[in-house]
Amino acid sequence: MGSSTDNLKGFVLALLSSGFVGASFIIKKKGLRRAAAASGVRAGVGGYSYLLEPLWWTGMITMIVGEVANFVAYAFAPAVLVTPLGALSIIVSAVLAHFILQEKLHALGILGCVMCIAGSVVIVIHAPQERAITSVQEIWNMATQTAFLLYVASVIVIVFVLVFHFAPLYGNSNVLIFTGICSLMGSLSVMSVKALGTSLKLTFEGTNQLIYPQTWYFMLVVVTCVITQMNYLNKALDTFNTAIVSPIYYVMFTTLTIVASVIMFKDWDGQGLGSIISEICGFVVVLSGTILLHVTKDFDRNASRSLYAPLSPTLTTRLCSGNGEMLKHVVEDAAYPEDACLRRQGLY
Amino acid sequence: MGSSTDNLKGFVLALLSSGFVGASFIIKKKGLRRAAAASGVRAGVGGYSYLLEPLWWTGMITMIVGEVANFVAYAFAPAVLVTPLGALSIIVSAVLAHFILQEKLHALGILGCVMCIAGSVVIVIHAPQERAITSVQEIWNMATQTAFLLYVASVIVIVFVLVFHFAPLYGNSNVLIFTGICSLMGSLSVMSVKALGTSLKLTFEGTNQLIYPQTWYFMLVVVTCVITQMNYLNKALDTFNTAIVSPIYYVMFTTLTIVASVIMFKDWDGQGLGSIISEICGFVVVLSGTILLHVTKDFDRNASRSLYAPLSPTLTTRLCSGNGEMLKHVVEDAAYPEDACLRRQGLY
Repeated sequence: MGSSTDNLKGFVLALLSSGFVGASFIIKKKGLRRAAAASGVRAGVGGYSYLLEPLWWTGMITMIVGEVANFVAYAFAPAVLVTPLGALSIIVSAVLAHFILQEKLHALGILGCVMCIAGSVVIVIHAPQERAITSVQEIWNMATQTAFLLYVASVIVIVFVLVFHFAPLYGNSNVLIFTGICSLMGSLSVMSVKALGTSLKLTFEGTNQLIYPQTWYFMLVVVTCVITQMNYLNKALDTFNTAIVSPIYYVMFTTLTIVASVIMFKDWDGQGLGSIISEICGFVVVLSGTILLHVTKDFDRNASRSLYAPLSPTLTTRLCSGNGEMLKHVVEDAAYPEDACLRRQGLY
Repeated sequence: MGSSTDNLKGFVLALLSSGFVGASFIIKKKGLRRAAAASGVRAGVGGYSYLLEPLWWTGMITMIVGEVANFVAYAFAPAVLVTPLGALSIIVSAVLAHFILQEKLHALGILGCVMCIAGSVVIVIHAPQERAITSVQEIWNMATQTAFLLYVASVIVIVFVLVFHFAPLYGNSNVLIFTGICSLMGSLSVMSVKALGTSLKLTFEGTNQLIYPQTWYFMLVVVTCVITQMNYLNKALDTFNTAIVSPIYYVMFTTLTIVASVIMFKDWDGQGLGSIISEICGFVVVLSGTILLHVTKDFDRNASRSLYAPLSPTLTTRLCSGNGEMLKHVVEDAAYPEDACLRRQGLY
């Protein structure tokens, strides 16, 4: 089993996936703009003219191709490698937006891109080798080891508490509730996606795994987790500004996925301490780059329209003060109604 | 020869050095403020009352201790390890300024600190082992190998061209001229400091190196290079804003020092490609963090006094357009005369 070539395949697929997903945002947004210009009715105010716009569908297809590549990448390389590389899609979309949509990238945004790349390189260099897996039962044994069952149990308990206690009370004022639910479910999604992807890979390679009930069980888990995750991600995007939701979601989701993968697949067993620390640093750098890119995304336009003030307080204050965010959201929406509508719909 | 404990000693000394140097800026600035408050005459307008202020002298001594620790660190660990850790002094001074001088750190500045730390950790993990050197002649042989002589020759030629052709024409309008001269000379300073430091270390360990002419020759080179470097650094600080000079100088100086060290001490020989790439990435991350910290240093105050506009253009444009910088400098100085005077004098 060429474990090292598998890692390479996973790496290339993750890169392709980031390229497609990043490009899809731009294509979709261009499609929405063109549709709005043609019909005079914006998506945000009830128009569905974008459904007739081929460019929007091209964007959708690009996104699906990207997500499939991502899914397949998980079958080849460890989640510790594939998940952080998702940050590169943000770079792709920022760079394309700069050139195609004329949304000028702030100098600090470029610095954010450089950091994401440097951090990703460190992660790739120190990524553990994917273990050779020969059947779905092996994955099943990993998924049912005590440590991972404890992780799953705690995730389920926390999600229940968030959904039934905190969401009704603070869901609309604190951005961490909905994004927390998606991130927790997301970590289980990725683990089950990886299990399913590996089973399908083995099936395609000739050893049919569909005869085992575990494969179907994993499929059920994938569907449940992905639907829950998407449902709460939409709620989060619907309630808060994308520029706030995206980095928080990315940070929590990626961190939890890595934790889950380290517990379930024992990615870090047999790795030197230096490698593990380097990987964590690389990850911290990618996260910082992503945050920088997101925070500076609206700098110029805010500065020029004297809306800079709400960005000044420390990040922590801003992220935790749901009400302040709502206010900022309202202020921003008042200033850019067209963007706000698209943003609310989660259309870009 | 415990090469690994030597690396550790160098690492600890570099950390101490950053702590002392970082703290010295804050102590000196506090001393200057107290002196100005006591006498009513500011240093920038000709007052020398700070020379009577014990706090200012404490700051000076702290700085000298820090620089000595840095000098000794070079005797124990490779320049590839010691030089980038200098960035930590910026973190120390930013954090202390936040708490002691109440100069609030911007949220992105905190992100810059996190990056500098993450990048430094990656560098430390992948730093090459210092080779055991037994006499100054060994260093002399390294300094006279063809590759390094070529490096020295090109540095000298470029410095001459910059000093005699470009400095008179563009020295006052383009920030890259003076900082370029300091950085080029700086890389030679560090190499000669390392040679001298190692000779002195060997002398203290019992094998007297002062009997060799090479030791004295290295001492001469140290003095020449450091004086030239300091002279042009003062010119740069005198002509341009510290917030512009510092990051450019740090980036160029550190990069050239690493290049010089890799050529002269062959730091990267025998290191795996992965280690070298990780080191470079760690270095890029530290540079990015430093730039971020410097660029965001004046964000809040600029935003609140509506001077934010000059910071908006891309970094490259700002760094390369000397005239624009001069203008910004003038505008800033008009707004904060007291800071500008101190800044001009290079007192902080």
